[in-house]
Amino acid sequence: MPAPPEFLKYVDDNANNFIQRLADAVAIPSISGDASRRQDVIKMANWLNNQLKAVGVTTELKDLGTEQIEGQTLPLPPAILGRIGEDKNKKTILVYGHFDVQPASKSDGWDTEPFTLVRDEATGRLVGRGSSDDKGPVLGWVNVLQWHYENKKELPVNLRCCFEGMEESGSEGLDELVGRESKPGGWFEGVDAVCISDNYWLNTRTPALTYGLRGLAYYKITVSGPARDLHSGVFGRTVYEPMTDLIAIMGKLVDSQGRILIPGVEDLVSIADEDEKKIYASLDYSISDIEESAGAPIALSSDKVEVLMGRMRYPSLSLHGIEGAFSGVGAKTVIPAKVSGKFSIRLVPPQTPKLVDPLVRQYIQDEFSKLKTKSKLEIEDLHGGKPWVADHNHWNFEAAKRATWEIYGKLPDLTREGGSIPVTLTFAESLGVNVLLLPMGRGDDGAHSTNEKLDKANYLQGTKLLGTYLYEVA
Amino acid sequence: MPAPPEFLKYVDDNANNFIQRLADAVAIPSISGDASRRQDVIKMANWLNNQLKAVGVTTELKDLGTEQIEGQTLPLPPAILGRIGEDKNKKTILVYGHFDVQPASKSDGWDTEPFTLVRDEATGRLVGRGSSDDKGPVLGWVNVLQWHYENKKELPVNLRCCFEGMEESGSEGLDELVGRESKPGGWFEGVDAVCISDNYWLNTRTPALTYGLRGLAYYKITVSGPARDLHSGVFGRTVYEPMTDLIAIMGKLVDSQGRILIPGVEDLVSIADEDEKKIYASLDYSISDIEESAGAPIALSSDKVEVLMGRMRYPSLSLHGIEGAFSGVGAKTVIPAKVSGKFSIRLVPPQTPKLVDPLVRQYIQDEFSKLKTKSKLEIEDLHGGKPWVADHNHWNFEAAKRATWEIYGKLPDLTREGGSIPVTLTFAESLGVNVLLLPMGRGDDGAHSTNEKLDKANYLQGTKLLGTYLYEVA
Ligand SMILES: [Zn+2]
Ligand SMILES: [Zn+2]
Ligand SMILES: [Zn+2]
Ligand SMILES: [Zn+2]
Repeated sequence: MPAPPEFLKYVDDNANNFIQRLADAVAIPSISGDASRRQDVIKMANWLNNQLKAVGVTTELKDLGTEQIEGQTLPLPPAILGRIGEDKNKKTILVYGHFDVQPASKSDGWDTEPFTLVRDEATGRLVGRGSSDDKGPVLGWVNVLQWHYENKKELPVNLRCCFEGMEESGSEGLDELVGRESKPGGWFEGVDAVCISDNYWLNTRTPALTYGLRGLAYYKITVSGPARDLHSGVFGRTVYEPMTDLIAIMGKLVDSQGRILIPGVEDLVSIADEDEKKIYASLDYSISDIEESAGAPIALSSDKVEVLMGRMRYPSLSLHGIEGAFSGVGAKTVIPAKVSGKFSIRLVPPQTPKLVDPLVRQYIQDEFSKLKTKSKLEIEDLHGGKPWVADHNHWNFEAAKRATWEIYGKLPDLTREGGSIPVTLTFAESLGVNVLLLPMGRGDDGAHSTNEKLDKANYLQGTKLLGTYLYEVA
Repeated sequence: MPAPPEFLKYVDDNANNFIQRLADAVAIPSISGDASRRQDVIKMANWLNNQLKAVGVTTELKDLGTEQIEGQTLPLPPAILGRIGEDKNKKTILVYGHFDVQPASKSDGWDTEPFTLVRDEATGRLVGRGSSDDKGPVLGWVNVLQWHYENKKELPVNLRCCFEGMEESGSEGLDELVGRESKPGGWFEGVDAVCISDNYWLNTRTPALTYGLRGLAYYKITVSGPARDLHSGVFGRTVYEPMTDLIAIMGKLVDSQGRILIPGVEDLVSIADEDEKKIYASLDYSISDIEESAGAPIALSSDKVEVLMGRMRYPSLSLHGIEGAFSGVGAKTVIPAKVSGKFSIRLVPPQTPKLVDPLVRQYIQDEFSKLKTKSKLEIEDLHGGKPWVADHNHWNFEAAKRATWEIYGKLPDLTREGGSIPVTLTFAESLGVNVLLLPMGRGDDGAHSTNEKLDKANYLQGTKLLGTYLYEVA
């Protein structure tokens, strides 16, 4: 069912209050990756906890223990678990968001102070660190609850919240918490579906629902030889050089057209049928959108479907760099003693880090043997994550599609993201229910970048969308 | 003719004075590459100038102008030109050395304070920055002159000196000075041969004379695409990636066995005949010497002659690193926007930077075209230098061979160095005379490294050798 018209009107009428709420949140520099800001992340947890309690949510701050960072033992910021409604006849929906942010300082190139929300009346932009990632969406939920609380309206669903303060730093402690709370008697018992608002539209025009994420297998291959760096004048052509061998191996992983050359890795993935291709063809996204965001005419194909599938449903392999080689400016005639090439493979179902790992290792070892070098090889996987794809015809997605139609007057793009949001998989696997990614912001919001913004329209319409989704999913 | 026995005895008798002289020189941190030490280089020039005047040398401090370094305009340290003797019936010998040093600080891993000469009685090592490169050899000449001056003995030759303070920083200003002074009426007019003492024995046992140096052609190849670094999750397999293209090119330059794959580059070099191979076979240097100095069993061949020719008379190509890629520790999922591969080719006659340059550019451009990428390619040569080979049967070398026999009781190894000493070519080309490289230190002295040392025996025998060379060359 659609949301009550009074709710929608209330959002418009309270725009300034909601923006002030976002400004208050942005003002707390809750940078989880900066040890010196840890108290601000904890302060942010308390602030958000008070906001939730003030709109009638029963909350609990969950202590997640400590972590070692920069040589210190630091308390992890607590996760906030919240609940409203215990009606057995209603669906139970779990919403997730995070209240920590990426680092930011004016010296990075921001036009304004990153921890002061600046309202640009001309463009409608609300500029500040965390505005879009992810304080705006989290406060969207608070805004929704405020109307219900003030007007003594029951929610159409039982709501459960999980808000964390370590998302930008590997979600330390969250997997264990979700695992514990997913068990019978846990906080998440009875959850029927999950809604995560922490990603973006493909573009600046069309709302999106996201049903897939690529996984990752990140490798470091180290080639070593001499006991120390050597001078190329003295040793050039007398010894085996690790860089020569490493570059030879790195050159055999992927071709210029993006095809992965490791036998078996691409073969794991099914060919898209015509029905699936139609989804990509229908997306409001073009080659020129991609080239605009890359800043150059460098798309791998002129076929939009191919390029979108390259991002969303094909694996990819990128060479990131080399540790231990000469990386400065100028000319240095060194033969580096030990060099580590970094590359990663973005995975799609049914690929997993476990499935591709033996293929990667076998191939690299075989190719290295062919070099007949006396250098030594070591292969390490630095980290990995499984890909995720949800059923986008599930009632959870259908509710979001109807809600999008009601608020925006158009159907959402059905997208898969090229990157990963690990918590998605955590919820999907721990709870065994459908997970919906319901973004609030636009593709150009610049999360993790300078001048991060959330458009005022997205904040207000997004608040309405989150509320409407709860009615439609009920 | 051999040197007077009194001279040889004087060197032994004055060992402590000579070591004190070296200690005084080492105590001045004349680091030419560090703007904040420029006054120390100038102080060192004045100190050395006074030493030379005190032993009867007529000197002139030659102003070399200024240079831009780290955004400042700095005065270049003056070069010291010196002369003794104007006898038309004597040969005129020019000796060269440098009084600047490489940077050094205890925190680099030195066991002792680098600018305090430490005398290790157990090993006979004189440890300190510049002890071997090149203050020891320069003071060797001063020691020789001291005996002649104190005993009112005329030198057997007319001596000219050229001591500079910018050798470790590209010998700024020296080429022009040598060019000017080589002309009729210049300071170097009438020079019959040059002796440079600024390199090392092959090993720790056998003196050496050096008659060849490899040249260099250093390249930076830049591949670019996106306007900024991209996230591999969002862009992996949607755009051409500069790293993929750069690595493909770098992987086609040299094979693991050290063979240069750029067509035509190796073909320029003649095959060694049996006579030439005998020189390499006769050198007091083994595969295990090479592997010991590299710190690992990684020689390209088990054939000593092949390995020595690899260093001395074959060209080599080394891949040094990549600028602009991810080079830190850990895992970063970046698609770098612009990456520059650095590599250099060591050249041997008749190769020159000019001859190989079109071959390098054509090949890289051809291979890049084959990639069918939309990335952009730029090829730059950062710097270069011609190789040098002298006639090792010239009277200048014959004199040094006799002098070596007289002081060390063995014939010197006749070596070619794999690296370059650009000033050698400057003198050879400007003066058109034979240049001899007559090293004082051992192969393990660690010039440019931590714990640089000169063995006391090499300092004293080396002083005798320089003096004896003057008598033999006369
Ligand atoms: Zn986020
Ligand atoms: Zn984020
Ligand atoms: Zn030197
Ligand atoms: Zn040096």
